[in-house]
Amino acid sequence: MRRAIALAARGLGSTSPNPVVGCVVLDASGRPAGEGFHRRAGGPHAEVHALRAAGDLARGGTAYVTLEPCAHTGRTGPCARALIDAGIARVVYAVADPTPQARGGAATLRAAGVAVEQGLLAEEAAAGNAAWLTSVRLGRPHVTWKYAATLDGRTAAADATSRWITSAEARADVHRLRAEADAVVVGSGTARTDDPHLAARGVEGAVQPLRVVVDTEGTAVRPGARVLDAAAPTLIAIADDADAGALPETVRLPRAARGLDIPALLAALHARGVRSVLLEGGPALAGSFVAAGAVDRVIGYLAPVLLGAGPAALTDAGITTITEALRLRLTETVRIGPDLRITAVPETAPVTTPVTKEH
Amino acid sequence: MRRAIALAARGLGSTSPNPVVGCVVLDASGRPAGEGFHRRAGGPHAEVHALRAAGDLARGGTAYVTLEPCAHTGRTGPCARALIDAGIARVVYAVADPTPQARGGAATLRAAGVAVEQGLLAEEAAAGNAAWLTSVRLGRPHVTWKYAATLDGRTAAADATSRWITSAEARADVHRLRAEADAVVVGSGTARTDDPHLAARGVEGAVQPLRVVVDTEGTAVRPGARVLDAAAPTLIAIADDADAGALPETVRLPRAARGLDIPALLAALHARGVRSVLLEGGPALAGSFVAAGAVDRVIGYLAPVLLGAGPAALTDAGITTITEALRLRLTETVRIGPDLRITAVPETAPVTTPVTKEH
Repeated sequence: MRRAIALAARGLGSTSPNPVVGCVVLDASGRPAGEGFHRRAGGPHAEVHALRAAGDLARGGTAYVTLEPCAHTGRTGPCARALIDAGIARVVYAVADPTPQARGGAATLRAAGVAVEQGLLAEEAAAGNAAWLTSVRLGRPHVTWKYAATLDGRTAAADATSRWITSAEARADVHRLRAEADAVVVGSGTARTDDPHLAARGVEGAVQPLRVVVDTEGTAVRPGARVLDAAAPTLIAIADDADAGALPETVRLPRAARGLDIPALLAALHARGVRSVLLEGGPALAGSFVAAGAVDRVIGYLAPVLLGAGPAALTDAGITTITEALRLRLTETVRIGPDLRITAVPETAPVTTPVTKEH
Repeated sequence: MRRAIALAARGLGSTSPNPVVGCVVLDASGRPAGEGFHRRAGGPHAEVHALRAAGDLARGGTAYVTLEPCAHTGRTGPCARALIDAGIARVVYAVADPTPQARGGAATLRAAGVAVEQGLLAEEAAAGNAAWLTSVRLGRPHVTWKYAATLDGRTAAADATSRWITSAEARADVHRLRAEADAVVVGSGTARTDDPHLAARGVEGAVQPLRVVVDTEGTAVRPGARVLDAAAPTLIAIADDADAGALPETVRLPRAARGLDIPALLAALHARGVRSVLLEGGPALAGSFVAAGAVDRVIGYLAPVLLGAGPAALTDAGITTITEALRLRLTETVRIGPDLRITAVPETAPVTTPVTKEH
């Protein structure tokens, strides 16, 4: 199952709106016979890849799957049926499928006389599928807020110079996060100040995320902006009543007290098949997400640098006193070059923190 | 030698103005015969403790010492002589003694026919003595700036509520830092707002640090302040021209552009035998230390909490653009309860980061 979970992670960023799934098939004597993972929506499921690799060796064998095999026919046939047809004698899966359309695979298998067990490494498998499980549970994409700051919490110097606060290694790591996400989101301030590109660069085989700019007034993204190039799709979110001007691919959303309504933005992205969002700032947009309770994971890149002045990573989160603070649980700290990457999830979150792709 | 370094660390906080030193004596056949460490200034040196424990077994044996045995007679006799008199055949020491008064021990030993080797685990031993070595090299105390903040760099909420940003475990760790330091320093803002006590509590056998308040105008520490109780000695630093009022134990120092002159403050502390300072804030005083180039180590306690508003840990460091940033090198990150403790030293610092006492 551990191998199946690792295989599943290789699909991160390319399977949406589907989950990531890995599968390992052992033959009747317990030897590895085939393995596979779900690579992209519309493509074969993990079980099908693994069964194809196993061929006749699957007969009488065992299939380890990270997610309950589906029982429905979508763009591909039901996996439960494929397992039965291949003569699999036993199926071990980690996490039950919570979706109304797909669940029921275990029952189908049992009805066909296949031995079925559930729960092996369930927590780990759920962590690997956190984005998709969150999106199923909440009906909105899983949101990771990423920031980079100095040890004293500054994202730039007092004169706004900020290039190279974090290292090349940390910046490369962010490109990996972008490749794993279905969408990358920034606010109008960032778009105006940094003219960011937001595509995943330097990540082999990356499926480019949807680049989203929250440009409430429709004034921050100008013709010629890097985010409008052909490297990846782009969506500009503007207010219902704003003037879109010549902006391509805009979505109109209701205003909130400040900026756009975050739940409406997430619903619009969910409707487009986005299951995971990487929120890259700026501080006020991140504050709006925090205030909306729409941050599921925080990844901070801390550079061992002191500035003593300059903008903060997070503002306007609607928190005025310590008891209202958003309390998190650290799930990982790791050195990235000279910097430190800190991962944390809200204390109220279930223990299904996303793992990152093997690399 | 590793054992000797561990022994030395047990003296942290109680040996000033002396270094910490550990010593292990092996008998002629290489078996451990005695060990010791320097416990307090004026008390026996590590070598004397170890030789006493070894007794006659020292004859023909080897002494491992973290610092070159002294050759001078201070409040105690020279250790080089004690080693010779005990019949030690070989001395291995890690770090040479850089002080004009004490050095020369190796030469004395060699002249008496003792085999002498230097350099074993020198880097590790120097790290254990970083505070003392820094004070010898720079003629001022070694300064550790300690702060506690949220992941987004806030030390309190917008309404100034801040209690329990970090955990009980992190706060206990700070008391250990206080016990290891010769002096704990805070500014007038902290004194006025928090009425801190600044003693080391809950640390067995702790030698209390000198509590220092930088109270430029002599108005922040009022009669009845907790810092004035009998738990530890206290020193109030005020400006040359300020009105001391009824303040006990004041030292008068020249003003700087803002607050007091930091080098003058450190010189005054050095003159009082202070070799290590724990700077506990507030942000403006920390900024003055950074601006003066007088931060040798940074220890940050990061709580997995987001606030989005509230004061920063560091201000007024005189840094306006990114190229002037104080760049550090991470030396340690460790979980302290739910929080993260990050230790870093200036990139320009020699690789002699203090280790912390075994605990």
